[in-house]
Amino acid sequence: MAKGLPSRSENYSEWYNELVKRADLADNSDVRGCMIIKPYGFAIWEKMQRALDDMFKETGHNNAYFPLFIPKSYLSKEASHVEGFAKECAVITHYRLKNDENGNGVVVDPEAKLEEELIVRPTSETAIWSTYKKWVQSYRDLPILLNQWANVVRWEMRTRIFLRTAEFLWQEGHTAHATRDEAVEETARMLDIYAKFAEEWMAVPVVKGRKTANERFAGAEDTLCIEALMQDGKALQAGTSHFLGQNFAKAFDVKFQSKEGSLEYVWGTSWGVSTRLMGALIMAHSDDQGLVLPPKLAPIHVVIVPIYKGDEQLEQIRQIITPLLNDLKAAGISIKFDDDDQARPGWKFAEYEMKGVPVRVAVGMRDLEQGLIEIARRDTLSKEQRPLEGSAQYIIDLLDEIQSSMHKKALNFREENTTEVNSWDDFTSQIEKGGFISAHWDGTPETEDKIKELTKATIRCIPFDGDACKGKCILTGKPSERRVLFAKAY
Amino acid sequence: MAKGLPSRSENYSEWYNELVKRADLADNSDVRGCMIIKPYGFAIWEKMQRALDDMFKETGHNNAYFPLFIPKSYLSKEASHVEGFAKECAVITHYRLKNDENGNGVVVDPEAKLEEELIVRPTSETAIWSTYKKWVQSYRDLPILLNQWANVVRWEMRTRIFLRTAEFLWQEGHTAHATRDEAVEETARMLDIYAKFAEEWMAVPVVKGRKTANERFAGAEDTLCIEALMQDGKALQAGTSHFLGQNFAKAFDVKFQSKEGSLEYVWGTSWGVSTRLMGALIMAHSDDQGLVLPPKLAPIHVVIVPIYKGDEQLEQIRQIITPLLNDLKAAGISIKFDDDDQARPGWKFAEYEMKGVPVRVAVGMRDLEQGLIEIARRDTLSKEQRPLEGSAQYIIDLLDEIQSSMHKKALNFREENTTEVNSWDDFTSQIEKGGFISAHWDGTPETEDKIKELTKATIRCIPFDGDACKGKCILTGKPSERRVLFAKAY
Repeated sequence: MAKGLPSRSENYSEWYNELVKRADLADNSDVRGCMIIKPYGFAIWEKMQRALDDMFKETGHNNAYFPLFIPKSYLSKEASHVEGFAKECAVITHYRLKNDENGNGVVVDPEAKLEEELIVRPTSETAIWSTYKKWVQSYRDLPILLNQWANVVRWEMRTRIFLRTAEFLWQEGHTAHATRDEAVEETARMLDIYAKFAEEWMAVPVVKGRKTANERFAGAEDTLCIEALMQDGKALQAGTSHFLGQNFAKAFDVKFQSKEGSLEYVWGTSWGVSTRLMGALIMAHSDDQGLVLPPKLAPIHVVIVPIYKGDEQLEQIRQIITPLLNDLKAAGISIKFDDDDQARPGWKFAEYEMKGVPVRVAVGMRDLEQGLIEIARRDTLSKEQRPLEGSAQYIIDLLDEIQSSMHKKALNFREENTTEVNSWDDFTSQIEKGGFISAHWDGTPETEDKIKELTKATIRCIPFDGDACKGKCILTGKPSERRVLFAKAY
Repeated sequence: MAKGLPSRSENYSEWYNELVKRADLADNSDVRGCMIIKPYGFAIWEKMQRALDDMFKETGHNNAYFPLFIPKSYLSKEASHVEGFAKECAVITHYRLKNDENGNGVVVDPEAKLEEELIVRPTSETAIWSTYKKWVQSYRDLPILLNQWANVVRWEMRTRIFLRTAEFLWQEGHTAHATRDEAVEETARMLDIYAKFAEEWMAVPVVKGRKTANERFAGAEDTLCIEALMQDGKALQAGTSHFLGQNFAKAFDVKFQSKEGSLEYVWGTSWGVSTRLMGALIMAHSDDQGLVLPPKLAPIHVVIVPIYKGDEQLEQIRQIITPLLNDLKAAGISIKFDDDDQARPGWKFAEYEMKGVPVRVAVGMRDLEQGLIEIARRDTLSKEQRPLEGSAQYIIDLLDEIQSSMHKKALNFREENTTEVNSWDDFTSQIEKGGFISAHWDGTPETEDKIKELTKATIRCIPFDGDACKGKCILTGKPSERRVLFAKAY
């Protein structure tokens, strides 16, 4: 237990909240449900952004920017869309404050009322499709492959830093296509990119699958998702990619002239991941000592802590390890050399464990006299003495090893916590233990709702790679085409 | 006159508006005063962001993110700050819509009224200083050197794409320091970074100086700025850096324990540049054929247009120029090879001129047989035949030459349009011609206001490098300590 961090087993929820604060990732703000992302947390988010953005651009997408505000009437144009978002909208009604005549500071100026209220975007389909209407005439204007990095607002009643906040940061891709097939392909392509990012960058294994109708995005014909398992046995939806069919094209009358000369509605997709990924990253890997970061997303890869008495020893150490620093920097490794003389080494060790720095190197004069340094890895909390000679390459390899080892560990955890269940009794007892449950379901929204009501478990997805054998629904006993994945979820 | 673009001399304002649209930079949206930044425009903004962000990080700043919403009462805490922003605030009053009982779609749910209204941030000093209050206790917590990239909203009545929009994108730096000197130094450092960016990346020469009290940021003790001259003779404020003194520390009670043990208020700065820079970039360089981009900010450096008949010739051309393409790519040059067979070369030439691609290479079989290609530069609209052999290095050098030549041209323009004036008659006639006017002013806000009222000219800045000889105010004849820079401005 580091610096009063509750253990995961003691109180997982408090452990998470405290960890977010103590690792300097984020803070609650004075505005209900809105968070402040601190520099260390934001540096991780920036690494995520850069990696994702590169992947989007490699697949032909370009960034753009659409307005923060959406006219109320636009939101209403797609029926299920407004149904999904109306209950959590921040509404702008006025555009000016004025000095209160009774001296109570500033008040809303009643004369500055908007003719039509504006909504702070909860997502941008309506802003974007009303624009595509102007941009698209012919098949030669298609496809449009756009993405935007933006803030969005959904007035959630119960919020939690990174996992569910009133304002969050995300990217939202919005594409328009001439054919259904092309849009379906795009929907799958972007899900694959999300899965690749989760697995290879975040070291978080994910299940790719399809949402049931109940869990579909408001306005989509089909929602694909990646689902990850957290250490407390709860699932977390880490990214979604929606096939919109022609729904938004019809709502905003977006038609194009095809090669053959006919006038047709455009096909659409949208897809997004958000700062919620920060929550997934934290909860998938971290331990009772603090954050554990995969090297590919760590703002600092290696911290070097000199153990010394007096400036002269510090200078000696600095000189001796300069070649190591240079070799690591040349390999693109980001290093912090912490020579702060106001803190003891033990305090620093705990601090960098809390912050999840993947590799720690302790350098003391006594070790150096034997040509040794101490290298500790954060993920396993193990350490060993190693010759200084050749340590740059050792550390570079170790970072790769940590990245893949973290993924393996998380994958093992998920496999150990994924259970096939064939009876209602087993289902109810297993769901209390947590983890993914692979079980048969009769395919109806009613049964899905009933299971949720009885157990709080939801169908996370119909996995692409899952068991496709027929069976009987665990609740109703009715025939089922294939197993689906249940869990309690964030 | 390209594709109906009005000429600058004919109608500068229309020329700008049309250019923004035809070069595919941005569009007006259906939300009053809010713009849509299109992919080509956003790609330029991304290059700006990357360059600035690198400079901020090199000088020790880290990115963070603060909430979009500011409680109304926070805005009021600094008296001149609220005075400056209250009249242009977007105000959130409700957090939910509901179905109208009379079937008129969705309406604001009167039961979901916020206890305290929220303001969409016009700038984040109040959000940030209310947080610094929690972060700062001791001198060891200082300095704080933060920046955020964000959207902000100011409800402007007269808007113009990029130059003045209700929502715009910007970065806002917010720093906190233990001493006045350190904060003053930071204010100057960031102005220098802005000036360096404008000159070296945008190829836009700027005058560095200090704003008069009238033009100061609401809540600042001192506002430094960079001012650029546009081709129509109007000035454009391109960036500002504010020394906040202890104003926000006092408003939000942010104190720290100094090394000596005393409790003192923190010193602050804030500084920002916005998508307004896009407007400056366009208006500083572009011509009647369209956009002219400095190579350092151009999304596409070189467009290659093959001139061919039939697929076989196209394939031949492609093969012959592949080494050139590879050499350019290896040098980090971004290239578009436009083999679209639906458009004629002449149409493509006009299109890439409109989009400001710095270098165009035309490759035809007849030229190639003699080992030649045609290289055209966008800034001068000149072209020449060159041997294909060695053309990669020639193009790389040419891009550097274009970058510095554009800067020189803009600098010449500014010098030719900066006039020293010593009488009121000369002042009034000169101000009608446009350009910067260097003139004496008696130092009072009253005279400044009077001059503005009479001529629409404002004091753009008190230049750091300007003439510091004494003289007499052009309006009042009262003594003046030094010349200041007047202009009509955007």
